[in-house]
Amino acid sequence: MSTQEKTLVPGLAGIPASESAVSYIDGQAGVLEYRGYPIADLAANSTFEEVVFLLWNGRLPKSAELAELRASLVAKRSLAPEILEIIKLLPAGGHPMDALQTTVSLLGMHNPKARDFKDADVAQDICLELVAVLPTLVAAFDRSRRGLEIIQPDPDLDTAANFLWMINGEKPEEIAARTLDVALILHADHTMNASTFTARVVASAEADPYSVISAAVGTLSGPLHGGANERVLDSLAEIPSAEAVPTWLDAKFAAGGKVMGFGHRVYSVKDPRAHNLQGLVHQVFEKLGSTPIYDVALALETEMAERVGHKGIWPNVDFFSGIVYQKLGIATDLFTPVFAISRVSGWLAHWQEQMKDNKLFRPGQIYVGTHGHEYVPIDER
Amino acid sequence: MSTQEKTLVPGLAGIPASESAVSYIDGQAGVLEYRGYPIADLAANSTFEEVVFLLWNGRLPKSAELAELRASLVAKRSLAPEILEIIKLLPAGGHPMDALQTTVSLLGMHNPKARDFKDADVAQDICLELVAVLPTLVAAFDRSRRGLEIIQPDPDLDTAANFLWMINGEKPEEIAARTLDVALILHADHTMNASTFTARVVASAEADPYSVISAAVGTLSGPLHGGANERVLDSLAEIPSAEAVPTWLDAKFAAGGKVMGFGHRVYSVKDPRAHNLQGLVHQVFEKLGSTPIYDVALALETEMAERVGHKGIWPNVDFFSGIVYQKLGIATDLFTPVFAISRVSGWLAHWQEQMKDNKLFRPGQIYVGTHGHEYVPIDER
Repeated sequence: MSTQEKTLVPGLAGIPASESAVSYIDGQAGVLEYRGYPIADLAANSTFEEVVFLLWNGRLPKSAELAELRASLVAKRSLAPEILEIIKLLPAGGHPMDALQTTVSLLGMHNPKARDFKDADVAQDICLELVAVLPTLVAAFDRSRRGLEIIQPDPDLDTAANFLWMINGEKPEEIAARTLDVALILHADHTMNASTFTARVVASAEADPYSVISAAVGTLSGPLHGGANERVLDSLAEIPSAEAVPTWLDAKFAAGGKVMGFGHRVYSVKDPRAHNLQGLVHQVFEKLGSTPIYDVALALETEMAERVGHKGIWPNVDFFSGIVYQKLGIATDLFTPVFAISRVSGWLAHWQEQMKDNKLFRPGQIYVGTHGHEYVPIDER
Repeated sequence: MSTQEKTLVPGLAGIPASESAVSYIDGQAGVLEYRGYPIADLAANSTFEEVVFLLWNGRLPKSAELAELRASLVAKRSLAPEILEIIKLLPAGGHPMDALQTTVSLLGMHNPKARDFKDADVAQDICLELVAVLPTLVAAFDRSRRGLEIIQPDPDLDTAANFLWMINGEKPEEIAARTLDVALILHADHTMNASTFTARVVASAEADPYSVISAAVGTLSGPLHGGANERVLDSLAEIPSAEAVPTWLDAKFAAGGKVMGFGHRVYSVKDPRAHNLQGLVHQVFEKLGSTPIYDVALALETEMAERVGHKGIWPNVDFFSGIVYQKLGIATDLFTPVFAISRVSGWLAHWQEQMKDNKLFRPGQIYVGTHGHEYVPIDER
């Protein structure tokens, strides 16, 4: 167990945690691929359901396969009355990510086959259930906390459109549904991030997939991982008007502050996920009407391009997703749950990979404490 | 992001994940220390409450400090009516570890300060609450699933005795309470195991401590991590009588099978946690009466000592804990929850350490997939 001779790499940055064929990032080149498909092509041509198939099977589906997947997801979307009963009892003031972590774990309690996931059919059923039902869990809690009736899933709608329906109680415009669909595509996987890594560590103990996904939701609830688009909106809300952008930016730069929603830790060129979303977001506001915060965002985008675009600092996916989620009627604290609704597909792809060639994670530590203390009775301390 | 040049170490075995001063293992020498105190001294002299103080503060408490800690734990043990209401709705057939993962996350939803854990007072309150309330969560679910009245914590009893009271509805014998107390001491920390590592990864995203502990419970629910003592009992149940042990062992060895409860992956000499427990377990059965399974266990212990003792293969902590937990009235599927009731103290010590010098875990991966696929329209596939 002695690891004293090894050097600590904080956060295990760059230390490979596993082999993976799910997704690939080249931050310098601005490349993100799922199973070898560039993200821009998927965002332009694909749907979230198709991406789920791709992530799990390593290839795009044929028509009949996609139809089957969509039907399976539709069939698994509804919540059992026992789950709905508990959702209605969750405290309205609780964070929706905590509600999601709680209820995903609760689902596992209700599935008597949860621990039989080594059976391929059981595994497939659980994976489909989790992708199908996460949007319903999020929407049901959101409606319940607002004192509104919980809306049943609509079997005629795919994941994105159905989520907007369950949140808002009205059928979304086509451009709204397609924009959320693309956002779900863009967030489905991102290599070995902290929540995906959590999923693999929990999975490595052979915990059931509900425990795995519940834990990953927990990690994503942390502000150092999820929530960047929430903070973009908070930041935009600080700017009183589009006209005020230059002055606000002057002050921000003078103070050495970071402008939320620009640049990305992983990408040194433009975030490859931002491009497709940007076009759709502009269409959404054009068709459905602008908002003051969107006017501010546009002005900020223009001003930032002039000032720091030449340094490779461009708006990232969080810049656009936050603005447009709000326009689609999604409450700010549901932005990270929406991330989870998408990322669960990637977590499960990594779970499947981990289970194929599993080894329990048991890293070392560098002991920096003392040794050999003598136990002194309490009245002599 | 390129990590292609690095070699994968499966399970990150031996790769330091962090610095730590909480506990130390020397597997060759059979040493386990908490904050530099040998586990045998703590098991002989200390209590679980004192060990909690030690793990969190790096030193043993003075009398007044220990009294304060015990009072705080007593004060935080009861569950709010809203939590109890949901526990009663959990499916009786669900696994108690899933119930624990669910309800720990639920507790976080009910604490409006959950996300203010960077405030030292809030952090301390949450840590105390989690250690105080985990036994109540486990016992309340167990009583509820058995259709029995949920028993309120008894303020006159410490953690171990109170847990037995809440499970069984009668005050435990002193030897019973002390044996569980020692078992809790022995399981409180064990360096960078998979659940502790999970806690650190989730914590590194700055998720709140409820999310952290819920996720760690999830990992511990995996049979490659928790549950070894359950499997010891299953294994002992295969042996019809003490007299049948030699024949059973002959068959086991001939088949090359492993005898559950003997030897330990981490310790190449006798598990330092087994010794103290062994003595107490013998006292428990002497005072409270033997059972057929205990007679089998004794015969197996003797027979194994003769056959493989010279190879350094001795009964480990799981061998004794399973047998005695059963005698104490604890259902087999509560053994891992009892592990969690103890280990939560260690998880929280690691959480505190992680928060002092945090960096988001974001390891690399070795990409083994393909690149640059062209998107082909669905009807051309």
